[in-house]
Amino acid sequence: MPIKFAKRVSDIQSSEVRELLKLTEQPDFISFAGGLPAPELFPIAEIAKANEILLKEDGAAALQYSTTEGFEPLRNWIAQRMNQRLQTYFTQENILITSGSQQAIDLTGKIFLDEGDVVFCESPTYLAALNAFRAYGCEFVEIDTDHEGMVMADLEAKIQEYPQAKLIYVIPEFQNPTGLSWNLERRQQLADLSEKYQLPVLEDNPYGELRFEGETLPSIAHFNQSGNIICTGTFSKIFCPGYRIGWIAGDEEILQKYTIMKQGTDLHSNTKAQREIATYLTHFDIDQHIEKIRELYRKRRDTMLTQMATSFPEAVSYTHPEGGLFIWVALPDNQDVNPILQDCLQEKVAFVSGETFYPNSQKRNTFRLNFSNMPEEKITIGIQKLGNVLHTYIDK
Amino acid sequence: MPIKFAKRVSDIQSSEVRELLKLTEQPDFISFAGGLPAPELFPIAEIAKANEILLKEDGAAALQYSTTEGFEPLRNWIAQRMNQRLQTYFTQENILITSGSQQAIDLTGKIFLDEGDVVFCESPTYLAALNAFRAYGCEFVEIDTDHEGMVMADLEAKIQEYPQAKLIYVIPEFQNPTGLSWNLERRQQLADLSEKYQLPVLEDNPYGELRFEGETLPSIAHFNQSGNIICTGTFSKIFCPGYRIGWIAGDEEILQKYTIMKQGTDLHSNTKAQREIATYLTHFDIDQHIEKIRELYRKRRDTMLTQMATSFPEAVSYTHPEGGLFIWVALPDNQDVNPILQDCLQEKVAFVSGETFYPNSQKRNTFRLNFSNMPEEKITIGIQKLGNVLHTYIDK
Repeated sequence: MPIKFAKRVSDIQSSEVRELLKLTEQPDFISFAGGLPAPELFPIAEIAKANEILLKEDGAAALQYSTTEGFEPLRNWIAQRMNQRLQTYFTQENILITSGSQQAIDLTGKIFLDEGDVVFCESPTYLAALNAFRAYGCEFVEIDTDHEGMVMADLEAKIQEYPQAKLIYVIPEFQNPTGLSWNLERRQQLADLSEKYQLPVLEDNPYGELRFEGETLPSIAHFNQSGNIICTGTFSKIFCPGYRIGWIAGDEEILQKYTIMKQGTDLHSNTKAQREIATYLTHFDIDQHIEKIRELYRKRRDTMLTQMATSFPEAVSYTHPEGGLFIWVALPDNQDVNPILQDCLQEKVAFVSGETFYPNSQKRNTFRLNFSNMPEEKITIGIQKLGNVLHTYIDK
Repeated sequence: MPIKFAKRVSDIQSSEVRELLKLTEQPDFISFAGGLPAPELFPIAEIAKANEILLKEDGAAALQYSTTEGFEPLRNWIAQRMNQRLQTYFTQENILITSGSQQAIDLTGKIFLDEGDVVFCESPTYLAALNAFRAYGCEFVEIDTDHEGMVMADLEAKIQEYPQAKLIYVIPEFQNPTGLSWNLERRQQLADLSEKYQLPVLEDNPYGELRFEGETLPSIAHFNQSGNIICTGTFSKIFCPGYRIGWIAGDEEILQKYTIMKQGTDLHSNTKAQREIATYLTHFDIDQHIEKIRELYRKRRDTMLTQMATSFPEAVSYTHPEGGLFIWVALPDNQDVNPILQDCLQEKVAFVSGETFYPNSQKRNTFRLNFSNMPEEKITIGIQKLGNVLHTYIDK
């Protein structure tokens, strides 16, 4: 009689992506697989200075236990920034600091999901959100998704078909994995449907600041202030992911439930990391820093798209994202991406097969390319190699 | 029709302790309520130096995403330290870095507990562990606990009575809230019962290094290497809690399940915090640092116990812990501690009522005193005031 685990343990398997990412850590690999920021842009000197100031001025407080809600000046900064960029109406009382936006997603599962509940999501959607929600025993219902966002007619039909639905999960800006963004109308419509059916929405927005072109659109929370729209954000893509500092923004009453649940989960997020970021924000210009990131990623995206146009077979289609980290590739329907990936790994080029981004449907002809983490020369060579492999499958 | 939360949300209420701790943040309060380390001992200058070294030598890696398992040199240090202090047999492959040992507890609930499962615990036990486990829908069965640890005859009887039990949760060193430690025999017996009934044990040990007198005893994991004993530890009490860096130590196969579950929960713990601590450990002498903590806390414990002997009514009994942070006080059975606490709060002296440390039984005559966070003068004055209030209730 061996020891017994919870049911959820057998529901969640080690991710193949995780194993793949380990493999691609070898330095001679050209990896388009992960979603890592470019480390050469981390503001190391400024962080060293911020540390010096912080430890001198507030050392003891920075190293002590702190409130579950998080460091007030940081919460205030986040609220102001969201209001200014995304036309939301938050104050610091609407912000809970989390251990990365991954924890914001996990806590959302913990707050809303009982066994057998249904979560509506885009198709495809962010893999690690699926894993976080799955731990609470939910089922996923994929909503038809096109180049403008979720298809609202399909969403409303599914809401009526699945009265046990508890949550709608969306990434309306530079979605992971597709790189695409929702148009204004869909945002407004989702806010309306959320209100009409009293279904909460988790609006996950880790990449929104990384816009290379086009206009920033308002958050879904702009269109529905009744408290059903819960937003997450993170410093991982605009500052450094190693800090694991993200946030939940939402209605105060709902936020209180998150706070109580977070307290049992890890008491609070790293005090020093919160204050270090706040000190950086006070003494340095993060807008200037983000502009550098945007410029670099835009170049890398352009290099990748240009090389794809040259190297990929004509039958292959792909997205042209206005920002973010990812390009999404679709092969002809009859193609299976997995042997192609195996051939590429032989050539030391990696990407992530699209299969895992669909919770239910088994589409085997898509894959995701990341452009933020490789220098332009490697992008060019890697896409050439990938193109060569694609030609051996698609033109034959 | 308002939005619907998960069932667990209604099971977990905002902790009164949390509200109390907010109140006692006022600087003129003498608080014996929390469990905060003494911030005056945080090695701020050394941490500033460690930061400088880290950012210079490994800045980019320290700020980037990293593996869920954690930073290898830190995991290795932890394994060696546990083996040396607690006679365990771990390697770095047995260590998973967590966001404080609170997360280690939460992940243990996530790994083992389904709705309706039973957790055996000491009586009383650590409040925040109860809240963490409760989120997974478990029930608690309190095991008789005396000054030498859990009473093994009672544990075995309860194991037979509750076949749905999944986990035994214990704090064998300077327990929170009692301050008491288990003797050697009980440790051995628990290891044997765990083996006999294939019931995993979570051995929570946040305070073990803070021993002022007496000998360090081996971990329960020393007596059972079949993998059923899972240990947690933390840097919160020997270094700084603000980092939220703790760990799980256990069997590799079980640890893999923790790792997969942690990945969905928050991807990984703060990379920079892990490397900052590792850099400190390489360049500075943590044993010397811990010795300072021990000396200060011993003095504070002595001051508190001495003043209690003078100021408390004779009918009041309390523990004399050999280390840790807490003293546990029992009033005569017919007393209710809550009006006493209210009177003390009027006098700006705070402690935590014992009630919340019992998951089921409603004992109202106990309370917990923390001695680590107040200077000796304040301890003396606070205990005098507390003693005065006690006399008005107990001698009348």
